[in-house]
Amino acid sequence: MQATELAQPATRRSVFFLSDRTGITAETLGHSLLTQFDNVEWNRHSIPFLDSMQKVAALAERINQCAATDGCRPLVFSTLVDEEQRAVISDTHCVFYDFFGTFIDSMEKELRQQSAHAVGRSYGLQGNQTSYFDRMEAINFTLNNDDGVSARNFAKADIILIGVSRSGKTPTCLYMALQYGIAAANYPLTEEDMDSMRLPKILEPFKDKLFGLTLNPQQLHRIRQERRPNSPYAALAQCQQEIQWQESLYRLSKVPNIDTSNISIEEISATILNRSGLKRALYGASKNH
Amino acid sequence: MQATELAQPATRRSVFFLSDRTGITAETLGHSLLTQFDNVEWNRHSIPFLDSMQKVAALAERINQCAATDGCRPLVFSTLVDEEQRAVISDTHCVFYDFFGTFIDSMEKELRQQSAHAVGRSYGLQGNQTSYFDRMEAINFTLNNDDGVSARNFAKADIILIGVSRSGKTPTCLYMALQYGIAAANYPLTEEDMDSMRLPKILEPFKDKLFGLTLNPQQLHRIRQERRPNSPYAALAQCQQEIQWQESLYRLSKVPNIDTSNISIEEISATILNRSGLKRALYGASKNH
Repeated sequence: MQATELAQPATRRSVFFLSDRTGITAETLGHSLLTQFDNVEWNRHSIPFLDSMQKVAALAERINQCAATDGCRPLVFSTLVDEEQRAVISDTHCVFYDFFGTFIDSMEKELRQQSAHAVGRSYGLQGNQTSYFDRMEAINFTLNNDDGVSARNFAKADIILIGVSRSGKTPTCLYMALQYGIAAANYPLTEEDMDSMRLPKILEPFKDKLFGLTLNPQQLHRIRQERRPNSPYAALAQCQQEIQWQESLYRLSKVPNIDTSNISIEEISATILNRSGLKRALYGASKNH
Repeated sequence: MQATELAQPATRRSVFFLSDRTGITAETLGHSLLTQFDNVEWNRHSIPFLDSMQKVAALAERINQCAATDGCRPLVFSTLVDEEQRAVISDTHCVFYDFFGTFIDSMEKELRQQSAHAVGRSYGLQGNQTSYFDRMEAINFTLNNDDGVSARNFAKADIILIGVSRSGKTPTCLYMALQYGIAAANYPLTEEDMDSMRLPKILEPFKDKLFGLTLNPQQLHRIRQERRPNSPYAALAQCQQEIQWQESLYRLSKVPNIDTSNISIEEISATILNRSGLKRALYGASKNH
């Protein structure tokens, strides 16, 4: 990293995420660092597939121009593997956060092994088709078992999410299937269920697999308004009533549940996996968690 | 990082991914570094939601036990934010890759600002509901426009994936919707379409939005075998014929396309976005890419 000769107390900073492949790693880690700073407006540039020196040279020029325009150095988060390419970027007027270089040297020493310095490994399949099939199968399962359409498959589900309409069951199921290879089914709690304070009969044999979603009534109201504006279904009073009933049901039936009001799908999914003790398959991670 | 007093030339190494929240960032970056080393068998442990000193202390003991059992230090990839917690882990017999500490100090200097040191920001919504709605809307669009079921919505699609049955259209669409908020539709090329060497009529008005998927016939054969074993549909000769026709169609109709045989859904999606010039919304990244 260079001295901060161009640095200014600026509230608007440019950020580049560089990668020789998808950019997912650079963006994920960069984003998690940026969120630690308030009062900065980030002007983000994602540059994936930097796979030639030509592209890298053109980008170096763009970074320098950006530094000149901004009057301060852009922050550059990089997962570039190629040493020559990293050197070119490091020579620009930027603050270079070199994820690869920072850690790989120490890892080579510790493992007494040269690293492959090969691009594209992170999200490659590397001949391992198992996880591809697992994910496909989980996605198919989730699509075929969305909205309680075929409860006869609940026995095969890893988990069954329940909640009133628009409580986020489908996206959460899909995320768990795609990211973790979890066979996630879901079942909507409807107005008919509300007549009693019991779990729907169809769910009783699978009580151990249930996980409830809930959220604050105002947010449910906003989400339903987007779908069917000014309908009885979207009315705030209706949402309040459904959420109140739903949360009582979870409490009385001892269904573990999560309030999704202020967290993202990523966090909802990870929390459910963690609390339900389900095996995580993210990047083939072990069964421990 | 400590000296390597316990290090051994080992082919089996334990790895821990630590996080105070979902663990996605720690696992993503750690994974991308590990894939650079061949001939090492990784024993992975994912430890998300380390949200108390009690949990951290228990984990520290577990890491030390692991080091004793393995006869060499585990590699620990951490996105822990809390300084005290990081100090406890750093004191164990491990090689500590501290993503947060490594970069945040330099960022604080550059930005002349204290970081929030607050956990859970990376995947929190922080009051910004827009991206949640965008993603929900994209997922709903994708689910409602899967398998060409309602071509009347093609005008609203950001992209339309085409390909023969089991070429990976649905999971790719769902991934693009979930991760990038892209409204992705898809349309299956069928045997009826194969009678001519033309794009199906229904697709003609949307030629600019088309992106073709293809893969090698052997792999298509394997995937179809899983679904309908020993059917004419899954026969290798059938797969060869369909793929040959499909690739000719892409060439003649000038449909950009991608061979998905050896790459993951993440990479397929990022490549399609990159080549089609679609805006990326990963973590609210800017429209540049």
